[in-house]
Amino acid sequence: MTVTDELLANNETYASTFSGPLPLPPSKQIAVVACMDARINVYAVLGLGDGESHVIRNAGGVITEDEIRSLAISQRLLGTKEIVLIHHTDCGMLTFTDDAFKQSIEEDTGIRPPWAAESFADADADVAQSIRRIRSSPFIPIKDSIRGFVFDVATGRLNEVVVD
Amino acid sequence: MTVTDELLANNETYASTFSGPLPLPPSKQIAVVACMDARINVYAVLGLGDGESHVIRNAGGVITEDEIRSLAISQRLLGTKEIVLIHHTDCGMLTFTDDAFKQSIEEDTGIRPPWAAESFADADADVAQSIRRIRSSPFIPIKDSIRGFVFDVATGRLNEVVVD
Repeated sequence: MTVTDELLANNETYASTFSGPLPLPPSKQIAVVACMDARINVYAVLGLGDGESHVIRNAGGVITEDEIRSLAISQRLLGTKEIVLIHHTDCGMLTFTDDAFKQSIEEDTGIRPPWAAESFADADADVAQSIRRIRSSPFIPIKDSIRGFVFDVATGRLNEVVVD
Repeated sequence: MTVTDELLANNETYASTFSGPLPLPPSKQIAVVACMDARINVYAVLGLGDGESHVIRNAGGVITEDEIRSLAISQRLLGTKEIVLIHHTDCGMLTFTDDAFKQSIEEDTGIRPPWAAESFADADADVAQSIRRIRSSPFIPIKDSIRGFVFDVATGRLNEVVVD
């Protein structure tokens, strides 16, 4: 039995007490962009209920073209107005460099990825530059509340990064 | 008070009972790629605990370059071996076309996005082509267990999409 099979069995239990469909637009009109890290249960960390927030996640919680795409759809088609960014302590993205990672892939496959790996050396600084990436995008219409945090995996607390 | 402020207050409560750091690599060696939709609480839907799985999310739960980046980091640096894809019924991505969405942005901003919006007309079919995008990537080393599902927002159930 694979882990996937185990999770599907869990889903049977979940569905057995499921209470019907909620509306499509997030009721709290907010979108969260967080790292994919296994220790950040965004719902628990933020006290979010079902149907309340879009949740966008990737390696690092960084802002690339695909997060701009998701945020543009979130704001323009589904009515969200606030954005929360979450990086975290002890992040995998702090443990390598783009050059070394891409070199190892090239050695393994013979092909060098044409994309940036988006590693970073300082989580706070990368939250700040991620916020600036959103601010500088012409495709995100609502920029009044874009706030960024570093989640401390030792304490469970979100520490805000203040960006000029 | 913004919604963000409200979620930060929730985080204080969360942190007050938080029980220390878990290891960085996902203990169940699995990565989930799901739509950002507010109604899919991936932890509840799959019965996932803290520290068990990477969670990657975007508009549609689609596979673009950024998801290949995240999955490559997940497998190559953090030891995951299985991949689960989750699209869902009543998805916002079914409600527009790339052409119309990008045209509306161009009319609003004077700039046409240089990226695909990744809208789709059939969730099952898009799960299948998303799996094929992963299979065709040279940068994802482990492809033995890549399975895709459509989450039914009315029942809470994951329905598998079988891909040749």
